Amino acid sequence: MRILIDMDDVMADAVERFFDWYERDFGVRYTKADIYGKKLYDIVPDANKPIVKSYAHQPGFFKDLPVIDHAKETIEKLNKLHEIYIVSAAMEFKYSFTDKYEWLDEHFPFIHWKNRIFCGNKHLVKGDVLIDDHDFNLSTFPGRAIVFSSPHNMLLTGYERMNGWQEAKLFFDDLE
Amino acid sequence: MRILIDMDDVMADAVERFFDWYERDFGVRYTKADIYGKKLYDIVPDANKPIVKSYAHQPGFFKDLPVIDHAKETIEKLNKLHEIYIVSAAMEFKYSFTDKYEWLDEHFPFIHWKNRIFCGNKHLVKGDVLIDDHDFNLSTFPGRAIVFSSPHNMLLTGYERMNGWQEAKLFFDDLE
Repeated sequence: MRILIDMDDVMADAVERFFDWYERDFGVRYTKADIYGKKLYDIVPDANKPIVKSYAHQPGFFKDLPVIDHAKETIEKLNKLHEIYIVSAAMEFKYSFTDKYEWLDEHFPFIHWKNRIFCGNKHLVKGDVLIDDHDFNLSTFPGRAIVFSSPHNMLLTGYERMNGWQEAKLFFDDLE
Repeated sequence: MRILIDMDDVMADAVERFFDWYERDFGVRYTKADIYGKKLYDIVPDANKPIVKSYAHQPGFFKDLPVIDHAKETIEKLNKLHEIYIVSAAMEFKYSFTDKYEWLDEHFPFIHWKNRIFCGNKHLVKGDVLIDDHDFNLSTFPGRAIVFSSPHNMLLTGYERMNGWQEAKLFFDDLE
């Protein structure tokens, strides 16, 4: 089985980086509870929105992001049982490539470069399962689409939902 | 129709960069005629092979590569008629991403980031046509596989062959 796995907010915690940079710039610290069903962009004052929107386009945003809990050991186990591809929509962010690649080298060295894809649209990547946090990636996927819980998608329905990597065993029988 | 187009030695002339760097390091200038049916690696003295092999892994190798003749105007025209995706096996070369991305921005700004893919294996990218110089990409492609002539593949048979971008009109009827 070929499983495609998204990076941001599935493997890497980009949400916390948004909070870090916002606190650095505006002195206010938000938490994930503050953005249930939303993005940080949605809840900040209008005057600050353009700056929040620019964050992921700035050098360094994707560098050394925290690893989502249990992602490493679970994906390592999945990688022994299935064909795993990391599929990141990195093309939107031209400064993200090297940071993302080195992040994979550091935390997921067992993911061979042949199994890494940086793209724009994900809809032309063939796979059996897609684990992703975004409706716009999941909705065009012809296989089994699993939404990985992240604050912004908590109100999204219509997909199987994985609340963290410890739940992966509910989705893949052979994972014990 | 979705047409997938490779970058190196299809859009960008990486062969000339190999010759440049080899001349810089060893004082000998080869030409494309010297490597008919081969790669530079195959014809250099054994002692120099590891250095030649390292070139594409070094920072700057992919920066400001010359554009292959007629690639720009032909792909721009194709892009108005078809769904064009640039699919580069960039993942093997961790220093190539930014150079490749900026090269596309400079020479092919009409290729939206949504239509760019940097991958390892190309066999899981869906398309109707693949234009590529490598047998290992063409052989696993389930659609129409077109070999783009490059010195190393001149003895390769079993595919339709495009000898440069001026021949594109032989392959795509609507290109006039």
